[in-house]
Amino acid sequence: MSTDIGTLVLLRHGESEWNAKNLFTGWVDVDLTAKGEGEARRGGALLVEHGLLPDVVHTSVQRRAIRTAELSLHAADRHWIPVKRSWRLNERHYGALQGKNKAETLAEYGEEQFMLWRRSYDTPPPAIDPGDEYSQSGDPRYAELPPELAPLTECLKDVGVRMLPYWYDAVVPDLLAGKTVLVAAHGNSLRALVKHLDGISDADIAGLNIPTGIPLRYDLDAGLKPTNPGGTYLDPEAAATAAAAVAAQGRK
Amino acid sequence: MSTDIGTLVLLRHGESEWNAKNLFTGWVDVDLTAKGEGEARRGGALLVEHGLLPDVVHTSVQRRAIRTAELSLHAADRHWIPVKRSWRLNERHYGALQGKNKAETLAEYGEEQFMLWRRSYDTPPPAIDPGDEYSQSGDPRYAELPPELAPLTECLKDVGVRMLPYWYDAVVPDLLAGKTVLVAAHGNSLRALVKHLDGISDADIAGLNIPTGIPLRYDLDAGLKPTNPGGTYLDPEAAATAAAAVAAQGRK
Repeated sequence: MSTDIGTLVLLRHGESEWNAKNLFTGWVDVDLTAKGEGEARRGGALLVEHGLLPDVVHTSVQRRAIRTAELSLHAADRHWIPVKRSWRLNERHYGALQGKNKAETLAEYGEEQFMLWRRSYDTPPPAIDPGDEYSQSGDPRYAELPPELAPLTECLKDVGVRMLPYWYDAVVPDLLAGKTVLVAAHGNSLRALVKHLDGISDADIAGLNIPTGIPLRYDLDAGLKPTNPGGTYLDPEAAATAAAAVAAQGRK
Repeated sequence: MSTDIGTLVLLRHGESEWNAKNLFTGWVDVDLTAKGEGEARRGGALLVEHGLLPDVVHTSVQRRAIRTAELSLHAADRHWIPVKRSWRLNERHYGALQGKNKAETLAEYGEEQFMLWRRSYDTPPPAIDPGDEYSQSGDPRYAELPPELAPLTECLKDVGVRMLPYWYDAVVPDLLAGKTVLVAAHGNSLRALVKHLDGISDADIAGLNIPTGIPLRYDLDAGLKPTNPGGTYLDPEAAATAAAAVAAQGRK
């Protein structure tokens, strides 16, 4: 068995139109803002600066992650690498909160309920009504998912359950082949992955925020455990500043 | 055997930086111009207008085709479909002409030699020197190609020989699975494909130009022969105008 394991690079998409408007987004397929586009290109420049050139990229099926992958890879002159996508890398489905303003939700339901929905490991928000304008009913990209697989709401635990099969079946084989693997995804699908990699407890994951647009490198041993627990941000100072800003979301 | 064959849609990339400068490009990896980006988005809008939504996209490993695919698919809200890439869909390698001005080449070598290099089926331009600034020596995207596979020049016949294995092995299975298949590629890789599909002779292919940015639909029978020989442009009027302009290239 080879122990020449590839390098994992996680990249959370840059600012989206609904981040900017302070709305719960989840599976609603919004685009990046101009600022988010800039973050993606800066992420690509950081990859070049650190000599961390992806051999393959994995994305969700959501526009903000797909464009983050495209823009960062063009910036890194790696636009030509193979691309794989899966709904399993999607953002957490925010249920009935999708399309709702975060500050208004905080004001309406109070701090405790708000933080429970945002950060509880195993309490999902109420399910979205399939007839809601922000549900994904009829979206062709999910047409092949049977009803029991297509979520109407998710907690972080649910995200881990549906994300990990993709990790094991699609990402791990690329790492075992020695590749540098970029995963361009979302705050919560990446939190679920980091929880798994670093063995973070159900309680402690609540305090972990992943900043947007800053590549996070994981070096893995033959058992696919991080030799740099917590990973290494390619711009640690910006990561610390940004993580603090994410934690303050909803309080505008 | 199912006879429910999918639909093939060919899309030549929009104007590139070197189209605009009237330079031979070949395997040099230039970007689209703003005009080319607009053509790509318009191509995506035409797909929507005609209800021709791709289920899968195949591109070359060159930026101008990749960005054309990305921009047109974002415009058609199909950015999330699977992507496959191959150097076998690349533009013709223009050999020692890469980086040369078309008008200057015409003036220097005369009409006959110029048209032989541009349109002869089986006469390639002189090979590029591997040390030339416009050769692809050391380009990581071709690192896994053994020397006998990585061209230093190509005629259209050569393009057909290296493109067709990808057609048979990668595109045809998607068509047999009933999918709408978008191939975002280049003037000459698409000419080689159209020559094959329509059974165009070695002599007659010289007169065939494919316009940029206008999707070309082929409906195929169970033997993968077009039931609409020559294909159907989604904007026939623009296609006729553009084809005439392509034919006049080099004469500025």
